[in-house]
Amino acid sequence: MSGIETLQQSFEAYFNHRHFPTFPATLYDPLEEFLSNSGKRIRPVLCLMGNELFDEIHQDAYHLAAAVELFHNFTLVHDDIMDKAPLRRGKPTVHSVHGEPTALLGGDVMMVVSYDYINKIQSPHIKKILHLFNKTAKEVCEGQQLDMDFEKRDHVSLEEYLTMIQLKTSVLLASSLQLGSIIGGASDFNQQHIYEFGRNLGIAFQIQDDYLDAFGDPTKFGKQVGGDIQSNKKTFLMIHALETAEGEMATKLKESLLQNDVNKVEAVLAIYKACGIDKWANELKAEYLNKAMGHLEEMAVTKNRKESLIELAHYLISRDK
Amino acid sequence: MSGIETLQQSFEAYFNHRHFPTFPATLYDPLEEFLSNSGKRIRPVLCLMGNELFDEIHQDAYHLAAAVELFHNFTLVHDDIMDKAPLRRGKPTVHSVHGEPTALLGGDVMMVVSYDYINKIQSPHIKKILHLFNKTAKEVCEGQQLDMDFEKRDHVSLEEYLTMIQLKTSVLLASSLQLGSIIGGASDFNQQHIYEFGRNLGIAFQIQDDYLDAFGDPTKFGKQVGGDIQSNKKTFLMIHALETAEGEMATKLKESLLQNDVNKVEAVLAIYKACGIDKWANELKAEYLNKAMGHLEEMAVTKNRKESLIELAHYLISRDK
Repeated sequence: MSGIETLQQSFEAYFNHRHFPTFPATLYDPLEEFLSNSGKRIRPVLCLMGNELFDEIHQDAYHLAAAVELFHNFTLVHDDIMDKAPLRRGKPTVHSVHGEPTALLGGDVMMVVSYDYINKIQSPHIKKILHLFNKTAKEVCEGQQLDMDFEKRDHVSLEEYLTMIQLKTSVLLASSLQLGSIIGGASDFNQQHIYEFGRNLGIAFQIQDDYLDAFGDPTKFGKQVGGDIQSNKKTFLMIHALETAEGEMATKLKESLLQNDVNKVEAVLAIYKACGIDKWANELKAEYLNKAMGHLEEMAVTKNRKESLIELAHYLISRDK
Repeated sequence: MSGIETLQQSFEAYFNHRHFPTFPATLYDPLEEFLSNSGKRIRPVLCLMGNELFDEIHQDAYHLAAAVELFHNFTLVHDDIMDKAPLRRGKPTVHSVHGEPTALLGGDVMMVVSYDYINKIQSPHIKKILHLFNKTAKEVCEGQQLDMDFEKRDHVSLEEYLTMIQLKTSVLLASSLQLGSIIGGASDFNQQHIYEFGRNLGIAFQIQDDYLDAFGDPTKFGKQVGGDIQSNKKTFLMIHALETAEGEMATKLKESLLQNDVNKVEAVLAIYKACGIDKWANELKAEYLNKAMGHLEEMAVTKNRKESLIELAHYLISRDK
């Protein structure tokens, strides 16, 4: 079984080439540039691991991994337009350099090219693969819409946030694993468990994301700690704080949300600590990690084959940046 | 062989249902509304005709026709964002009612759902179909990018405009026909000819579009006559006028482009007439229509099967609105 780094490298060797024609350069060059400023390639690695859990990695898994990575990058380009984000991976976003129309159109064509990679697959399960890919793509869009809807609302319940975050983040991680497992010849039973492993891991991943924004080490985090608090973002932490804070704490928290001064982050962090939100978040994360591990155990696969996935789970959950 | 109206009705009967889930309504309801405000369904009709030219219409052709129609509508929603268009089919555009983020995301999910319809196809030629669909989708995006690029340029040659318009308009008409013909079991030879028929017809269609904007009957046209002239749009007519006008005419035309007063349209139309641009446009249209008909004749299919396509070609080219 291959480790994370090996799979990252082997995916990079497959993926690191031009994906688009050269004409019109105004459309395609910004996309090549964006893709070369690579992220961690987590989803392609999950796809390859999903395959390798059941069989040697097939060429089809690389095509699928590329489709998933292109789809993910397309969502980033479009999300950045919607969120009016100036930076992505430390560099100016596509729309801020090349304008919104080109970023919009570029995202569109990147999505089309992800379907080109799906069409390279030789697997007899192409219909099942396309179905899962489409289902996931729709869910990711739904998650983004809910996220935007929530921004306009005063109250969002933990359950609603969980629904949103699963759609926006977890399902693509879960699907990447399942898509790979289909190539690996997994049974329906094993496919379901690997999907559920990914879905629960995705939730734990997001809790860690929300946690780091509040309690991360500023020297490692890379982003401004407290950014979510500053912008009144409804995170796992904030939603739980609003749901559990009582008396004076509740009053203070609501007052903080109306403020926008330099002490806001500090004030909210103090309330988080007083209410034990940090401890709660860590427990919730452990809970979802446990659920994920339970599904991994259920899978009818020898234990040693599961080691890379356990390594990846801990890598995603224990990261400090 | 079925006529245009019969096929429009039979497509409508298949297509006229909910295409998206009900949740989140903020994402999906605007799309249902947009789709119900239907256009002429030209592309689905072409797809069905492409099938019927070779065989009885198969259920697969309806799925493909729906995919093409959804793809076309997705491009309209996104184009309207890029062009900042306030109206489409006489109603406010999706982004002007629901905001740009929802229109952007809605377009995305509409594109994904077009691939859901492709996945319903039972044909053994699914790979060829997906390849052609993707190729066309990329070309349409390239055409839109070129169109935006041209807006920023002073000079565009007729050849460049032709390239742009083929990508933006013709290839989807051509592909709709070819996709249907694949379902009908057409040979590669016939597929190529039906594609070329559609591509040339598409160019003639666009010349008619440009012609109507300048010389259309205001009581029938539905849009403001001279809109392209008013906004200095580089159309077939304007490009040819700029390329052929000489001496005083050339000076007058260039002066008109710098003006923005009420007499602009009138002044440019007078130049068009003096230079015989209207006659030239009609001849050019006839030339492409002839090329299209030549490809139809080449097809190894009995003459009576071709009648609906001839009817459709004349319908598209002779329209006055």
